[in-house]
Amino acid sequence: MSIRDVVVLGTASQVPTRDRAHHGALLRFDDEGILLDPGEGTQRQLTFAGLATSAITRVCITHAHGDHCLGVPGIVQRCSLDGRTDPLPIHFPEAAASTIRNLCTATPFDAVTPVELHPQQPGTVTATTGRLRIRAAELSHSLPTLGWRIEEPDGWRLDPDLASRAGVEGQDRSELLRAGAVRVDGRTVHVEEVATPRAGQSVAFVMDTRWCSGALELAEQADLLIIEATFLESERDVAEQAGHLTAAQAARLANEAGARRVVLTHLSQRYPDLDGHRAEARTAAPDLDLHVAADLDRIALPPRRDLCP
Amino acid sequence: MSIRDVVVLGTASQVPTRDRAHHGALLRFDDEGILLDPGEGTQRQLTFAGLATSAITRVCITHAHGDHCLGVPGIVQRCSLDGRTDPLPIHFPEAAASTIRNLCTATPFDAVTPVELHPQQPGTVTATTGRLRIRAAELSHSLPTLGWRIEEPDGWRLDPDLASRAGVEGQDRSELLRAGAVRVDGRTVHVEEVATPRAGQSVAFVMDTRWCSGALELAEQADLLIIEATFLESERDVAEQAGHLTAAQAARLANEAGARRVVLTHLSQRYPDLDGHRAEARTAAPDLDLHVAADLDRIALPPRRDLCP
Repeated sequence: MSIRDVVVLGTASQVPTRDRAHHGALLRFDDEGILLDPGEGTQRQLTFAGLATSAITRVCITHAHGDHCLGVPGIVQRCSLDGRTDPLPIHFPEAAASTIRNLCTATPFDAVTPVELHPQQPGTVTATTGRLRIRAAELSHSLPTLGWRIEEPDGWRLDPDLASRAGVEGQDRSELLRAGAVRVDGRTVHVEEVATPRAGQSVAFVMDTRWCSGALELAEQADLLIIEATFLESERDVAEQAGHLTAAQAARLANEAGARRVVLTHLSQRYPDLDGHRAEARTAAPDLDLHVAADLDRIALPPRRDLCP
Repeated sequence: MSIRDVVVLGTASQVPTRDRAHHGALLRFDDEGILLDPGEGTQRQLTFAGLATSAITRVCITHAHGDHCLGVPGIVQRCSLDGRTDPLPIHFPEAAASTIRNLCTATPFDAVTPVELHPQQPGTVTATTGRLRIRAAELSHSLPTLGWRIEEPDGWRLDPDLASRAGVEGQDRSELLRAGAVRVDGRTVHVEEVATPRAGQSVAFVMDTRWCSGALELAEQADLLIIEATFLESERDVAEQAGHLTAAQAARLANEAGARRVVLTHLSQRYPDLDGHRAEARTAAPDLDLHVAADLDRIALPPRRDLCP
């Protein structure tokens, strides 16, 4: 049974509170577990979430501010302590390279896990081990920042009755979906005869940023959008100056981009409760499938969309 | 009202658990707030303890392992974010200098607080701003490690009746205690005429270490001894090899040194509960005033001892 969800590890921005640990999120996508922006304390938050470091296959970081990466030393060291010999790839903006490199060796420890550092340029695509692609786009913050998009390629949804009638059974079915055609009893069956196209799923991770084209590009038709909503409209000027979004902006951006499910996170400590975020986002985009994240929430990806054939 | 206690911020060793955050302790001693070995997450633990960074006047670090200092970036950055312009002195073994320096600038932030780095040699005394002295002694771990002792000088306990009979009132009383003698009505009153000597209080902080002379020296007659008890006797070999103490060793060491109140902390995740630590320590030193620390405990210093005149 494959899992596709995001486990919210922390929802704070710069300052943690009793209710909100520093930011961290684990995107679970079948065999991949992508740790997004681990802030200080992410190692322990994994424990609260009942997850081991083995759940992490790679790390994606948006920028070098501490609340987005001070959890890196703990994660890297804990992987080694847990005896992990699988590599741990870490993706980050090129401008953050020295920061991330230093965090990986911040204090002495017995290194067992091979850490692979992947400085990233905006716009390029990072190949992954599995069927997923990872793409980065430039955001607009107070220092170089990349948002991330994780994409599964489009595929096919097999109709079992049609497939049986065409004589495609067992292994041939996965071969047909993979290769697009298969030979059965001397004739070629094409995938479109027995399957309908379905969209690959995509998840966008947008923080920290002002409203910008990069954020819109990443969020475009995303099945799940995890987006910062540090402030409310009452602090719009502060948000603009510091390079952040308000809850209303985040909701409008998600709506404009056609994102299907939206998680607001990275919430300023100045808001003891999040009623304001919910109200403001709902007013800005009433039909949005919206979640204002709480620590340790698990939010599933919505079911796959069909594609017009 | 002056406070003299230790606020336990975290009690884990290498691996945090649901119940135990990474190590951290704040020694509050009148105007001083000495943060001892802040591990990852100490910033948030302060919040759980209801304390602001302004409660910290200085930081003392025993060694460069992550569970003893990965909280430094968060504390340093948070002081600046809180607008603190008072300096933040950080004391640590000379061998840890590059690690601590790098942690103080681990990720970019707007530095407001002047951080003063004090690499320390064993045996020397660090002058402090107030009446306290800070002393370091070498411990026996897997990399260079210093334990710390915080000492108040010996002083006098004034007998108000005797002082009145000698004509010493008001300001003259504090002057007498400070200077040792005061002129009243043309004659000199010496402090020993109206006061009895009392010991200054002392607190020792011993981790990580095997049984060694440095640990005994620091713990000697300490009013409060905070000491690591990572393991139990059943893991004695592991403890010896890794440079740690068992609960029984820590209790025996405290007893042999004549420490008055003892806090066991830095507890391995392999022990889900701490009954073993309590039992083992009690057997090893039945009369010890012993606390096996839990996160967010506050343990007061015992009342001052009298000194033989």
